[in-house]
Amino acid sequence: MTPKVARYLRDSMPATPCLVLDVDRVEENYRRLAAALPQARIYYAVKANPAAPVLQRLVTLDSSFDAASFEEVAACLDAGAHPEAISYGNTIKKESAIRAAFARGVRMFAFDSEAELRKLARSAPGARVYCRILVGNDGAEWPLSRKFGCELEMAKELMVLAGELGLDPFGLSFHVGSQQTKTVAYEAAIAKVAMLFTDLRDAGVNVRMVNLGGGYPVRYRQEVPEIDDFGAAIMGAMTKHFGNALPEIVIEPGRFIVGDAGVVSAEVVLVSRKAKDDPVRWVYLDIGRFGGLAETEGEAIKYAFRTPHDGGAEGPVTIAGPTCDSTDTLYEKSNYRLPLALDSGDRVELLATGAYVTTYASQRFNGFAPLAEHYV
Amino acid sequence: MTPKVARYLRDSMPATPCLVLDVDRVEENYRRLAAALPQARIYYAVKANPAAPVLQRLVTLDSSFDAASFEEVAACLDAGAHPEAISYGNTIKKESAIRAAFARGVRMFAFDSEAELRKLARSAPGARVYCRILVGNDGAEWPLSRKFGCELEMAKELMVLAGELGLDPFGLSFHVGSQQTKTVAYEAAIAKVAMLFTDLRDAGVNVRMVNLGGGYPVRYRQEVPEIDDFGAAIMGAMTKHFGNALPEIVIEPGRFIVGDAGVVSAEVVLVSRKAKDDPVRWVYLDIGRFGGLAETEGEAIKYAFRTPHDGGAEGPVTIAGPTCDSTDTLYEKSNYRLPLALDSGDRVELLATGAYVTTYASQRFNGFAPLAEHYV
Repeated sequence: MTPKVARYLRDSMPATPCLVLDVDRVEENYRRLAAALPQARIYYAVKANPAAPVLQRLVTLDSSFDAASFEEVAACLDAGAHPEAISYGNTIKKESAIRAAFARGVRMFAFDSEAELRKLARSAPGARVYCRILVGNDGAEWPLSRKFGCELEMAKELMVLAGELGLDPFGLSFHVGSQQTKTVAYEAAIAKVAMLFTDLRDAGVNVRMVNLGGGYPVRYRQEVPEIDDFGAAIMGAMTKHFGNALPEIVIEPGRFIVGDAGVVSAEVVLVSRKAKDDPVRWVYLDIGRFGGLAETEGEAIKYAFRTPHDGGAEGPVTIAGPTCDSTDTLYEKSNYRLPLALDSGDRVELLATGAYVTTYASQRFNGFAPLAEHYV
Repeated sequence: MTPKVARYLRDSMPATPCLVLDVDRVEENYRRLAAALPQARIYYAVKANPAAPVLQRLVTLDSSFDAASFEEVAACLDAGAHPEAISYGNTIKKESAIRAAFARGVRMFAFDSEAELRKLARSAPGARVYCRILVGNDGAEWPLSRKFGCELEMAKELMVLAGELGLDPFGLSFHVGSQQTKTVAYEAAIAKVAMLFTDLRDAGVNVRMVNLGGGYPVRYRQEVPEIDDFGAAIMGAMTKHFGNALPEIVIEPGRFIVGDAGVVSAEVVLVSRKAKDDPVRWVYLDIGRFGGLAETEGEAIKYAFRTPHDGGAEGPVTIAGPTCDSTDTLYEKSNYRLPLALDSGDRVELLATGAYVTTYASQRFNGFAPLAEHYV
């Protein structure tokens, strides 16, 4: 928790549940990442936190932006971004959304299928396009399965087709999964994309860019490698495979930029046991999976907690949200322990929760209002 | 799909994604359930769909209401419900919410722990309270695990304590899990609750009510037993265990009342393959798990689809939502097949989606607006 966030929580005591996010930390994270990967152009993954104060600060830093929808494109433009600094990175787009983005000046689009490519040719003629390929996601705590990307052979044909359709076959992309804790995942993916890159060059396609996606991790309960380690591994692999003819490099960090800038402040609604001699207490918070903590699904992302009783005796807990839905249980199997003194009405903080919480929140499940947000 | 919903979709062509719900069907379902269980008082589970037109229609039918939060209590009152027809059924409540509900006249509250009981004694003095016990959820497609309820022995002690604290130890409740497809689940739970009920009577506690919860199923892809079968099984078990001295019976249906009254209308955004010879197509819709279809988590609830090409040749599909998140995949393992002619821009209907879709929707994940709603 940054000092500014701590001060705001102490002095303003905002109603819970809420997110308090330090925009200066966003800037620090951006600068740290830029220093670790100076050859890369940073496209902030807007979906991680699309709040105007975050986007505006990143505009002042000359960041570019990775948008998942036309609505996110519009949010970037509203925050002062230039359209040429925006990549429409979702491979699944309504043609009306492509047209709208193109009309606003966006000229870079992702795809991973022929149908999408033909939409782009019709509705964003001449635009730069990049094809997303399937790569391994081992080591990612929030992996991305096969939903996005296509196999290499198809990617090759599609990149050739892109040129034939009057589009600019600009680059290739991949994503090693979110909260990726292994540097080797990037190295393996770069080896794969480099092979295709070379093939395409040999086939006469003027491909010039490699988009390494995001996934750079944040410290939750466990230590993760430093961003400099990722930078070194990535540049080592790029140099190994591309030599002196490095392509343009794009990265799309989201979690890394905003994750540890924010803290969710919540209230304990109830502490109970299911039987008198049950060693495990149930701790119910006023925020749960449907209030913004969607990434606790399957206990994938394991947030760290701070309570007013830290340092006192602890015991095992199951941690759940406030709704009448059992799937609204955060942690049952991840060996969480919290102070025995914890009680209804206590305020607790969930650390490093600046990413993927505000927009995941349901609009009113069980009647509960979505997460409030404070940018400081 | 009811004729009224079909007509509205055809004549009004509302923008997708949206829910269209026939309020007359809500009334029919209420009447069918009341006929199947005439001895029971129906408390509609507001969380299934808290829209004003639904609540208002149910008020005209003299329904009672099961609220999960003070906000839902307020929605019922706004719709014209009397406070004595409202049960605050969430066992996890902020004390401020208990106070607010009590101040508005609510006099029936659920609990399953000593801490919650003490909150009720302080903030809802003299209110009717009922204790939720843990029962099996076998047969439920959306089971409720151990998050709610307590063991029998603790329930007994807490009901005695309720009286000592000046509350009215009114009843006992259980929940066999949502979309419960086995009538035997209710029979087993009734046997369990009856045992405790008798124990409490023997201990001098004036317990008078049994709340059978909800769970009554809706037809999705598979046939489910008729509601009359549930009614017969439940009344058979109640008579077997309580004889002529039947307690007051409360039921809390949600899905059964609104489920088959609604249809989600969506648009196909993209149909693609990951490789040229891949037999499985990916079908991406403009609604997914974060746009309201949260109950497809783990492919638990399997909705039926209607497309403009039904009747033509079909092939296997994976069905996914529009966001840049792989968990936003609806069905990958449930052997869905859709017409080979299906293409971007086609409108499809997801049948029997009137329950648990509108409020689950994220407020703006990936920039997408929440589900629009039309009540006809």
